[in-house]
Amino acid sequence: MTAISARITGVDTYDVRFPTSRELDGSDAMNPDPDYSAAYVVLRTDAGDGLEGHGFTFTIGRGNDVQVAAIDALRPHVVGRSVDELCADPGSLSRDLIGDSQLRWLGPEKGVMHMAIGAVVNAVWDLAAKREGKPLWQLLAHASPEWLVSQVDFRYIADALTPEDALGLLREGRTGLAERETFLLERGFPGYTTSPGWLGYSDDKLTRLAKQAVADGFTQIKLKVGANLDDDIRRMRTARAAVGDGIRIAIDANQRWNVDEAIEWTKALAEFDPYWIEEPTSPDDILGHASVRQAVAPVKVATGEHVQNRIIFKQLLQAGAIDVLQIDAARVGGVNENLAILLLAAKFGVPVCPHAGGVGLCELVQHLSMFDYLALSGTTDDRVIEYVDHLHQHFTAPVVMRDGHYTAPLTPGFSATMLEESLAEYRYPDGTFWVADLAGQEDAA
Amino acid sequence: MTAISARITGVDTYDVRFPTSRELDGSDAMNPDPDYSAAYVVLRTDAGDGLEGHGFTFTIGRGNDVQVAAIDALRPHVVGRSVDELCADPGSLSRDLIGDSQLRWLGPEKGVMHMAIGAVVNAVWDLAAKREGKPLWQLLAHASPEWLVSQVDFRYIADALTPEDALGLLREGRTGLAERETFLLERGFPGYTTSPGWLGYSDDKLTRLAKQAVADGFTQIKLKVGANLDDDIRRMRTARAAVGDGIRIAIDANQRWNVDEAIEWTKALAEFDPYWIEEPTSPDDILGHASVRQAVAPVKVATGEHVQNRIIFKQLLQAGAIDVLQIDAARVGGVNENLAILLLAAKFGVPVCPHAGGVGLCELVQHLSMFDYLALSGTTDDRVIEYVDHLHQHFTAPVVMRDGHYTAPLTPGFSATMLEESLAEYRYPDGTFWVADLAGQEDAA
Repeated sequence: MTAISARITGVDTYDVRFPTSRELDGSDAMNPDPDYSAAYVVLRTDAGDGLEGHGFTFTIGRGNDVQVAAIDALRPHVVGRSVDELCADPGSLSRDLIGDSQLRWLGPEKGVMHMAIGAVVNAVWDLAAKREGKPLWQLLAHASPEWLVSQVDFRYIADALTPEDALGLLREGRTGLAERETFLLERGFPGYTTSPGWLGYSDDKLTRLAKQAVADGFTQIKLKVGANLDDDIRRMRTARAAVGDGIRIAIDANQRWNVDEAIEWTKALAEFDPYWIEEPTSPDDILGHASVRQAVAPVKVATGEHVQNRIIFKQLLQAGAIDVLQIDAARVGGVNENLAILLLAAKFGVPVCPHAGGVGLCELVQHLSMFDYLALSGTTDDRVIEYVDHLHQHFTAPVVMRDGHYTAPLTPGFSATMLEESLAEYRYPDGTFWVADLAGQEDAA
Repeated sequence: MTAISARITGVDTYDVRFPTSRELDGSDAMNPDPDYSAAYVVLRTDAGDGLEGHGFTFTIGRGNDVQVAAIDALRPHVVGRSVDELCADPGSLSRDLIGDSQLRWLGPEKGVMHMAIGAVVNAVWDLAAKREGKPLWQLLAHASPEWLVSQVDFRYIADALTPEDALGLLREGRTGLAERETFLLERGFPGYTTSPGWLGYSDDKLTRLAKQAVADGFTQIKLKVGANLDDDIRRMRTARAAVGDGIRIAIDANQRWNVDEAIEWTKALAEFDPYWIEEPTSPDDILGHASVRQAVAPVKVATGEHVQNRIIFKQLLQAGAIDVLQIDAARVGGVNENLAILLLAAKFGVPVCPHAGGVGLCELVQHLSMFDYLALSGTTDDRVIEYVDHLHQHFTAPVVMRDGHYTAPLTPGFSATMLEESLAEYRYPDGTFWVADLAGQEDAA
């Protein structure tokens, strides 16, 4: 009887910040000094089974407190809910959170408030998968097409994807699913690495890391570009020389350019055969991306890590603006909205190559790509998940890379759970690391 | 010498909420129970002249605390700045706030964080205008085209509007400016009223208020639609019968529909000659608005109160998606971004009819329309500012309507300053109104 009456009893939030701006090699043309952070949420229940739902919004430092405040504002919608009902239908909570008529004014469905919804919704999916005893990718891949369709909000996308379309795609996706699952468990899902390509590395270091990436089994690497064209030409030449012709090199401008600049800069690098140009301009600029794509082909255009919701993704696809769709697990309204986005990508036949890195983004998004492979796209051709080797040690079930592939996680849940000691150390400003660090800054002042 | 060294010494924030959901007649298809609120900010200086800069983000209740937290996160960029430099170049602060590489992750340039930037930037403009001893519309209209162009961020819009385009438009706008200013001071700027059209009014009340609006000098009214088609047909027939053929009736769906629904619903109301359909679907759906516009002509398509930034407005114009552009003074990144949007509208020849209402939005946005008339569009033809008769009594210089027109405000500043006693009464949760109200709720529980 306990399970039947179990309720959500707490929505605990944590402002967790890692001082990566002092340690990281990584930097790009728009983000010179990120402190990888998480506005972290834990759903507690009175089920007595010891299971919690974990989720987070990824940020890069300042403003993580604002993000926590936004998650706190959602608490009244969550506390007191039936755990069984919530886990059987996370979409009902997703709809309630998005539909809160007063909070909706702060978006709608974008920015701080929408990412907060994503954190809470993802925590529910984590709890649901833990209760099922399955990793999330498997829960999703084994779910019925009808139930998956019930989890999608078709508002504002029905002109491009109807529930009937979605059902058809998911039913088709069941053919060969068991064989693909076997293959996934053996081989994993391909990744690519950004490690060699951060701005500011010497050419020697770039060469060494690029060769290392190939030796590690990666078939694609990525270079940050956009600060200085002469440097980028030299770095691109260096990278191509290091890896040879068989390895894909993507380039990433992190929104640095206007449309015209994006076209000129990409063309100037074209001789080195870049595979895609990522975030050439504002993530809001659908028509701009379409212009860039038309001008820089055969170089592909990719974006998504800052695309705010399914409505912008819908239009990027409708406008023929992208060749590669980059979902992010913690930018939009959680798994439910990412289901909509994966379905849109499948409908338009555009491959999904997720954004990851930061803290915990690899852990989360692998589940979505594996579901996509098993139940929607049916292939890993031209699909790769970004991989960056940062901060995985803070998770109870960190990603495991093997031969350039993400191995399929077997731990139940969404791989979102951070270690208790990491929370205690990096909680801002009262974790042990920050107390000591801030005291040191005062002494120095 | 004091003035030269004057600095910003404080950025004080207030969570101000008015319990309008209990008092207001107003409601629409998406916002049934708004508590009109302001995340309010006051810039204090050590100039010794008693002048402060006031600004705010408008919200509709829950989440106003999140908005305050976002403004608080901007404080380090503002405190300590030279008042002279800030007021001489508000664009420099705007660029710094938008460019904060860590906070940028929470947008970029959208939602909670971007509206917070708008509140702070608007407060600087309020201070600058007070120090000039001019209402903001006049400060802007008298400024040189070169300086105005320096206040605009062309990033991500240069493919549609270059600095040279902007300069040309502003130089053209100077012809006849003095005559228009004289006319504006005499006549004011035309408004329209939403008062008759809230959902849930009886037909008798609708008729009475619609006739009253005409008697008050308004030449346009607006009806909320989108909850029930049969009701809307009856209400539209009633309204048209009340005002006759010479008065424009706009309709407003507040984002209620998908694209197909928007087209069908609008066509079903076309026989009553609606002037525009406002917010037919998601404010993010540029291509959707373009489809609606093509299908429902000659009914015009209007949107903007929830359009997040200049980049979406740019595309709405590029795609031919709107006939009427509705700026909002407190949604985007403040006056600087609204200058960009007014310039884009002028470049594309689309009239600007601002969104207002709520609390304080009429007070702010009148300045922008008056600037647009004086220095850009040169006409009030087909231009009207929304007017709603709510909460003006809380401002030190409330709007004054005369014969359906906004009279030009003469008080120096941006008309953003609330009465001290209103802040003391409606600050949440510790203002006198809320202390008594929350105690009453506890007693009742």
